[in-house]
Amino acid sequence: MAADRCRGFCVIMAGGRGTRFWPLSRTERPKQLLSLASPVSLLRDTYERVAPVVGTDHVLVVTSGELAGPIAADLPELPGERIVAEPVGRNTAPCAVLGAGLAARLAPGAPVALLPADHAVPDTEVFRTQLAAALDRAAATRSVVTLGIPPTRPETGYGYLEIGPADAGQPDFRPGVAFVEKPDAARAERYLAGGRHLWNSGIFVWDAGAFRAAAGRHVPEIVACLEPAVAAWGTAGFPAALAAAYARCPAVSIDYGIMERLSSFEVLGARFRWSDLGSWRAWGELAPELAGGNRGLADLLSIDSHGNVIHVEGKLVALVGVSGLVIVDTGDALLVCRTTADQRVKEIIDRLAQDGRREFL
Amino acid sequence: MAADRCRGFCVIMAGGRGTRFWPLSRTERPKQLLSLASPVSLLRDTYERVAPVVGTDHVLVVTSGELAGPIAADLPELPGERIVAEPVGRNTAPCAVLGAGLAARLAPGAPVALLPADHAVPDTEVFRTQLAAALDRAAATRSVVTLGIPPTRPETGYGYLEIGPADAGQPDFRPGVAFVEKPDAARAERYLAGGRHLWNSGIFVWDAGAFRAAAGRHVPEIVACLEPAVAAWGTAGFPAALAAAYARCPAVSIDYGIMERLSSFEVLGARFRWSDLGSWRAWGELAPELAGGNRGLADLLSIDSHGNVIHVEGKLVALVGVSGLVIVDTGDALLVCRTTADQRVKEIIDRLAQDGRREFL
Repeated sequence: MAADRCRGFCVIMAGGRGTRFWPLSRTERPKQLLSLASPVSLLRDTYERVAPVVGTDHVLVVTSGELAGPIAADLPELPGERIVAEPVGRNTAPCAVLGAGLAARLAPGAPVALLPADHAVPDTEVFRTQLAAALDRAAATRSVVTLGIPPTRPETGYGYLEIGPADAGQPDFRPGVAFVEKPDAARAERYLAGGRHLWNSGIFVWDAGAFRAAAGRHVPEIVACLEPAVAAWGTAGFPAALAAAYARCPAVSIDYGIMERLSSFEVLGARFRWSDLGSWRAWGELAPELAGGNRGLADLLSIDSHGNVIHVEGKLVALVGVSGLVIVDTGDALLVCRTTADQRVKEIIDRLAQDGRREFL
Repeated sequence: MAADRCRGFCVIMAGGRGTRFWPLSRTERPKQLLSLASPVSLLRDTYERVAPVVGTDHVLVVTSGELAGPIAADLPELPGERIVAEPVGRNTAPCAVLGAGLAARLAPGAPVALLPADHAVPDTEVFRTQLAAALDRAAATRSVVTLGIPPTRPETGYGYLEIGPADAGQPDFRPGVAFVEKPDAARAERYLAGGRHLWNSGIFVWDAGAFRAAAGRHVPEIVACLEPAVAAWGTAGFPAALAAAYARCPAVSIDYGIMERLSSFEVLGARFRWSDLGSWRAWGELAPELAGGNRGLADLLSIDSHGNVIHVEGKLVALVGVSGLVIVDTGDALLVCRTTADQRVKEIIDRLAQDGRREFL
C-alpha cells in the first residue's frame, strides 16, 4: 500500500438500481453487486479499495432495504451494524447526512469520504494515495475536497467542476469555482479544450465539522429528520427511528442540496483512471479486448465485425459483419442494442414493468 | 385434397448439409431436419406434401449414411428399405439415377418426381394439384416437366429456366428454351422484367422411360456404376453393391449432367409460394411477423428496431435501435449477423473446423 494509514472514515453509498445494465442487472442484483470491473462486485471492489486507507473499522455502507441482505453476503467481514439500510430512497443528500452522522458517532472528528459503490477505478494504489491526501487536506483546512476527473472526451452525461488557478504551495488542490450541471455538446467541447473543468466524480471528502455546518445550513430539514435516528443507532430503537425519519425526509441530491451551494471547496484532480460505468458502452471501454477489435467477456468468433461490446458467458458467440452493438446474454434474456442507444436500455425496464413481466425486472 | 391421386412416384433428395442455418443446423441435424417452415421438419413437410399425391407407398428418400438414422426417426411410417443412404455424396445426378432406378423397380413405368427435401411451400394444395398435373403431363408426353417459379426479385443466387410461347391447348406447360446459370445482377433484372424466365426450383418430373433414356445418353458412366446396385436392391447384397457403385461414381449435378443437355423439356409455372430457404434472411421472409416490423420466432421486446430476423427460443429478446440483423440462439451458440452477410455464415463453419471445435459443427 502506497498511502500511509489515515484516520479518516469512508461512507460507501450503495443504494442505486443501475437499470442501465439490464439484463445483467435486476432488482435484487443491481449494478453495484455485479462483477463489472473484476471477479468481485463493484461494491466489494470499492470496499477493498478504501479499507486499507481508513481501516476496515472505519467503513460504512448505506444502501436500501432490499439490498441489505445481498450486501451483507457480499461483505461478510463488515459487521452488520455498519450496513445501514434506508427504508426508502430519498436521493443522496439524506444518505450523506445519515452516513456522515453515523461516521461521527463511530469516529468523532474523523474526516469523511462519501463514495459511490459502483465506479470502476483500475489504478487502485494511485486512488488510495489521493484519497488519503484528500482526507488529510479536508481535515487540515476544515473544508471539503471533491475529486475531479480530467476529461478525456466532451461528455454531456456528467456534471463538471470548474477550477481556479493553482496555489503554488498546493499544486494538487485547486480552488473550486463552481459545480456545473451537465453541459450541452458545444459547452462540453469548450470545457474539454479549456482545461479549467473536471468531471464531477461524486466522491466528496469532508472535514467532519465542515460537513455538519454545511448540512445544517443548506439542508436543515434533512438534518432535523435524521438526528433522532443517528442518536438511536446501536439501540433497539434504531430501525423505528430510521423509518420515522425517512417517512418525513425530503428527497434531494447531495449535489443540488449541498455541494452546489457551497461558498468554497477544493478540487483534487484524479491521477487514476476512472469510469462511472454509466452504460454498457462505458463498461466496454474498460473491458478486456476480444478478437477483431471487440471488447467484453465472451468466447467470440468474429468475422468482419468490430467495435462491439459483448457480455455473454457459457456459449460461443459468432458475429458476422456487425459493428457498434452491445450484446448481453443472461440465459433468460438477450439484449442486442446499438452502442449509441445504450442509454435507452432503461426503456426496456419501463416496458417490462408496464407488461407486468416482473421475472425480468 | 384437391388433386386426384396419381400413380406417379416421388424421390425426395435429402442429402444436403445446409450449413447456412448454423448454429441451428449441425452435422447431425442439417437443414432438412430442422423445423423451419412448420412445427415438423422440412423433410417431413415435403413427405406430407407429396404422399397424398402419389400414395405413401410411392415415396422414397435418398440421403447420406449419417442421416439415415435421424431420417428414419423423423419418418417412422416410411419402411426402412425406402430410406436409401448414399455411402458418400456424389452431387445430385447419382442420387437422381439411383432414385429413379429404385422407383422403376417399385413402380415400373410410373412417372417420377425428383424433389429436394429442404424447400418451403406454404400453399400445399396448389402444389399438390400442380405436381399431379406435371406427373400426368410427363407420362403423357414421355418427356420431362420442370417446375419453374415466377421470379419476384432479381435473384442472382438461382438458376433460371428460359421459356417459349405458350401452346394454346396447354397454357400451363410452356416449352423450355434453356437452362440458364445464375445470372449477374444486370441480367437478373432483365429476366425479372422480361417475363420469359422462371427460377429453377430443382423439382423435375420425368416420364420413367424418358429419364432412363436421358441418363443413359448424358451420364452413361453413372448409370453403369449404379445399375448393379439398383438390381441388388431388396437383397442382402445391396449395401455392398451400393458402396462399390459410389466408390467409382463421378460427382455431377443433375442440372449440369442431365437437365442442361436436354434437347427439349417443358416448364410448369408454379402458382404456389415457394422458398428454397437458402439463408436465414430467406427464412425470415416466410417466418411469422413479430413486433416492430421484425420476423421470426422469439419472445421479442422491440424498441426502435425493425427488419431483424430472429430465431431464439426459451428466453426474452430485447432489441434497441438495431435493424437488418439475423439473431439466432441455440443455447450453446449465439449468432448475430448482418442480414446482407448471411451467406457468410459458412465462414463460421470453416473457422470452427480449422480451430477443431467439433462440438459446434
